[in-house]
Amino acid sequence: MVMETGLIFHPYMRPGRTARQTFDWGVQSSIACDRIGFTNMLISEHASEVWQNIPNPELIMAAAALQTKRIKFAPMAHILPHQHPAKLAIMIGWLSQILEGRYFLGIGAGAYPPSAYMHGIKNGADTVFLNEMVRESLTIMEKMWKREPFFHEGKFWNAGYPEEAKSDDLHDEQHKLANFAPWHGEFPEIAVAGFSGNSPSMKLAGERNFKPISIYSGLDALKQHWDIYSEASIKAGYTPDRARHAVTQTVFVADTDKEARRLVIEGPIGYCFNRYLIPIFRRFGMMNGFAKDAGIDPAKADLDFLVDNVFVVGSPDTVIEKLNTLFEKCGGWGTMQVESHDYYDDPSAWFYSLELIAKEVAPRIGLPGDRAVGAEKIRNSVQVNT
Amino acid sequence: MVMETGLIFHPYMRPGRTARQTFDWGVQSSIACDRIGFTNMLISEHASEVWQNIPNPELIMAAAALQTKRIKFAPMAHILPHQHPAKLAIMIGWLSQILEGRYFLGIGAGAYPPSAYMHGIKNGADTVFLNEMVRESLTIMEKMWKREPFFHEGKFWNAGYPEEAKSDDLHDEQHKLANFAPWHGEFPEIAVAGFSGNSPSMKLAGERNFKPISIYSGLDALKQHWDIYSEASIKAGYTPDRARHAVTQTVFVADTDKEARRLVIEGPIGYCFNRYLIPIFRRFGMMNGFAKDAGIDPAKADLDFLVDNVFVVGSPDTVIEKLNTLFEKCGGWGTMQVESHDYYDDPSAWFYSLELIAKEVAPRIGLPGDRAVGAEKIRNSVQVNT
Repeated sequence: MVMETGLIFHPYMRPGRTARQTFDWGVQSSIACDRIGFTNMLISEHASEVWQNIPNPELIMAAAALQTKRIKFAPMAHILPHQHPAKLAIMIGWLSQILEGRYFLGIGAGAYPPSAYMHGIKNGADTVFLNEMVRESLTIMEKMWKREPFFHEGKFWNAGYPEEAKSDDLHDEQHKLANFAPWHGEFPEIAVAGFSGNSPSMKLAGERNFKPISIYSGLDALKQHWDIYSEASIKAGYTPDRARHAVTQTVFVADTDKEARRLVIEGPIGYCFNRYLIPIFRRFGMMNGFAKDAGIDPAKADLDFLVDNVFVVGSPDTVIEKLNTLFEKCGGWGTMQVESHDYYDDPSAWFYSLELIAKEVAPRIGLPGDRAVGAEKIRNSVQVNT
Repeated sequence: MVMETGLIFHPYMRPGRTARQTFDWGVQSSIACDRIGFTNMLISEHASEVWQNIPNPELIMAAAALQTKRIKFAPMAHILPHQHPAKLAIMIGWLSQILEGRYFLGIGAGAYPPSAYMHGIKNGADTVFLNEMVRESLTIMEKMWKREPFFHEGKFWNAGYPEEAKSDDLHDEQHKLANFAPWHGEFPEIAVAGFSGNSPSMKLAGERNFKPISIYSGLDALKQHWDIYSEASIKAGYTPDRARHAVTQTVFVADTDKEARRLVIEGPIGYCFNRYLIPIFRRFGMMNGFAKDAGIDPAKADLDFLVDNVFVVGSPDTVIEKLNTLFEKCGGWGTMQVESHDYYDDPSAWFYSLELIAKEVAPRIGLPGDRAVGAEKIRNSVQVNT
């Protein structure tokens, strides 16, 4: 296998963008990624963050549903403690039917206490409590998708599925229940994202055979993620597969290294990191892993440091080299989940970068054991349409 | 003023339609109605009904948002007891921003006990209980839209709005809260629908200055709706305005009476009434008002009876005559809310009917006191593009 490409859309729109611009950018991005050949688009769900201003990823997926053909969508993630599980299960089932299966389901407990507070949860930093809510929500959703009668009186929610009423008249359809189970009546693939090295999400993913998604936070954490995931997976009787592992990264490709670096530093990516992500990274110690990899003091890790040492930025050849080196060190992964940024004013350089990533870079990145496949792919690789 | 036109989309798709077909029909209908000049499109929300198979009207609105220009959308209705009010308030706010104000909000308590059961409510026929949930939900949503700090510990839900964190650094935007209040920070117009003559929804609408929507169930009920609404409205210090009153009806217009009648009886409308709505009407006594108006036994009220006595079917001239007679009897209303049906296989006759309704019929229907305006409009009426 070779690396697949996906987008992760938070979407890091600069404050001042309207909701319509954010939404429009989401729809435009999905159409572009579908055309370019990206495998998936993950859209996050946040109620409280000005820089991550999509509260309902399903609205963008719905808007893109009839305008895309191949790309799969996933919320990454629906925050389960914030909503009624039956209502959510029905929406997920219906949307996965609308998308005719081009859907999987990212779930999360919620990482932002102000957002939890909005939804009535005062202890939004208590991950044990939130995870108890996640487990109950998931139990209810799975029962809803089975469409068999039950009534669950839970700690956090009640929910049920009724018996279908009977009718003596074959032509009378007023008693029938609509079918909002997911596409083909199957449970959707579930995905969870982990950040810190010792990630409980990766353990859960292994135990439940969920798709693991690593928010890139340095080499050590990435290696740990795979170790935790694969150990839990094997213990639970599954076979861990690196092809299912997705890793998010800031990636930007242009024709030359110099051009790529300039576009990142002077453009929307640099603006977002300086105004939002670097302060966040420092506040929550998220810079530590990157600084450790490079052997520097985390307080000195600035935008230039990130561009040269953490992001994957450059010409196609440079980016292939960087990624293959990284793959050698950590064992590789299945999907490069490119972090989306606010190129709404002028998308051309951004969409060109995505096209280079999908068509020039990805076919040349193989898992370490598959270098021959990677080389084969290079010879047959698709030309980029500029 | 003259009558405005809207669509109400339940959508009465015949069982066997896929979710994608239903969704596609919704998007197509919204685009057609926007082009034709319909003022609004109401989309209902049902979790349990095979014939009313849209659980999330917001997904259709999102899909139509960038493809329509003038038409307003409303869920009719979001069922408030089924979902967390904070989550819903945020979605409503975001969607009304995406639609740049082309939005109003239908709310309901839920009329289907199987659907209530799914969402954990066993007493889904207890309207007093459900209305208590509606009131608490509305209180929470209005607080969310104000974006001022609060924490509500309620009977059914907890919810809150946090203080925005402070930052000493002007360039650090990681503390800021996203703004998901509705368009321009204003509360959206709220609408409620009533069916039975002595409708508590109409009283609520009057008391709270909500937009009243009558599901047509005969002349007596319609007159009662306006009386209840206007009395409550005046008592609460508002001025009731017939222009805000919308009435749903089955309306079909073709070039001749004969063609219109044939298309209704042999087409999707007839199919739906025979298989779904007539059994429902009989079961819940919803035929009584129609039968009384015509002086017949409700058990004898069949499709032919409905087409000739209840629906508004015929050539433009016939339909204008029928509506003006009805307006004389009941005082008239502001918006004809046309019930949508499943013309997915061949939309042409349906969209032609909608075009005749909007361009030929509506300009010739005036409120009783405004006949001069109605006549003026006839002389200046827009030609239908076939």
